[in-house]
Amino acid sequence: MKLLAISGSLRAASINSALCRAAARIAPPSLQVSVFTGLGTLPLFNPDLESLPPPAVQAFRAAVAEASALLIASPEYAHGVSGSIKNALDWLVSFEGTVYKPIALINTSPRAHHAYESLREILQTMSTHIVAEASVTIPLLGTCVTEEEMIRSPEASSAMRSALNALLVHLAGAGASGPSFPLA
Amino acid sequence: MKLLAISGSLRAASINSALCRAAARIAPPSLQVSVFTGLGTLPLFNPDLESLPPPAVQAFRAAVAEASALLIASPEYAHGVSGSIKNALDWLVSFEGTVYKPIALINTSPRAHHAYESLREILQTMSTHIVAEASVTIPLLGTCVTEEEMIRSPEASSAMRSALNALLVHLAGAGASGPSFPLA
Repeated sequence: MKLLAISGSLRAASINSALCRAAARIAPPSLQVSVFTGLGTLPLFNPDLESLPPPAVQAFRAAVAEASALLIASPEYAHGVSGSIKNALDWLVSFEGTVYKPIALINTSPRAHHAYESLREILQTMSTHIVAEASVTIPLLGTCVTEEEMIRSPEASSAMRSALNALLVHLAGAGASGPSFPLA
Repeated sequence: MKLLAISGSLRAASINSALCRAAARIAPPSLQVSVFTGLGTLPLFNPDLESLPPPAVQAFRAAVAEASALLIASPEYAHGVSGSIKNALDWLVSFEGTVYKPIALINTSPRAHHAYESLREILQTMSTHIVAEASVTIPLLGTCVTEEEMIRSPEASSAMRSALNALLVHLAGAGASGPSFPLA
């Protein structure tokens, strides 16, 4: 199973980016995690370019299509989603490779509910499948903020492992019995 | 009085961009409207660059600072704000020239309430002043979609004039008696 981990922040010391890298290191062997590093290379979304998407967009879409599931961890800026993550998602709205894609939506800041709720609404509207058991809040702010600290923290690493395992269980079930999205 | 009109779409035939241009043409002489054309030149927001913002960001901030008020008209993508408008706003969050800035927030699609409500929450969190009387829904989709059609339409041009006049009344009041934001 392949998981593409996407952080919604371009900050070098981003907690969300650190979580994506930490998840890649502690994931069970059956889950191959790639951390998407091209968020900052995506051009701003322009519907006029949909017919011939720029190379960075094509690469992003290919990575999404190839992944069995996505992990998204993104900050909240001014009670809203980060422009960078929404820009990336805007490029996926009309991309059929996104439809029914299982998603683990991770919130690293319990107080930041606006962006998380907006992302839920957006991802549901995009017909992705937010896997409830894998979409959790992992309070990190102020406690452990680097990749190493997250891996060393029993609470943080345990929460990440639980989310990844829940995603694996979902993917195994979907693989055995077909897509688990409601067809009606 | 100077108004900076910002469309949240990069689409050439964008209704929101057309509304900005139409507003510039029908505004009363006392309101000098500039349409911001640099949205697509802004880099993706990176907090690490805040200390020395890229030239396009500096130009955008200067245009915002110089304006007496902003008009923002932005589309809804997948029940969320456009990544492009949020990216622009992300660059303004820590910019003191944005604080208490009067804003006319225009919704061109009555059914698209998610993005509009998100923008309200974001702009309020940024300590701007959304001028209620100037922040209206102008239903354009499917009726008049070009700049010329908006100017010719009695309903659309009347709605735009009302919003601009309400903004002028607010600005005149703020100028005479100081900022109208609550200080408590």
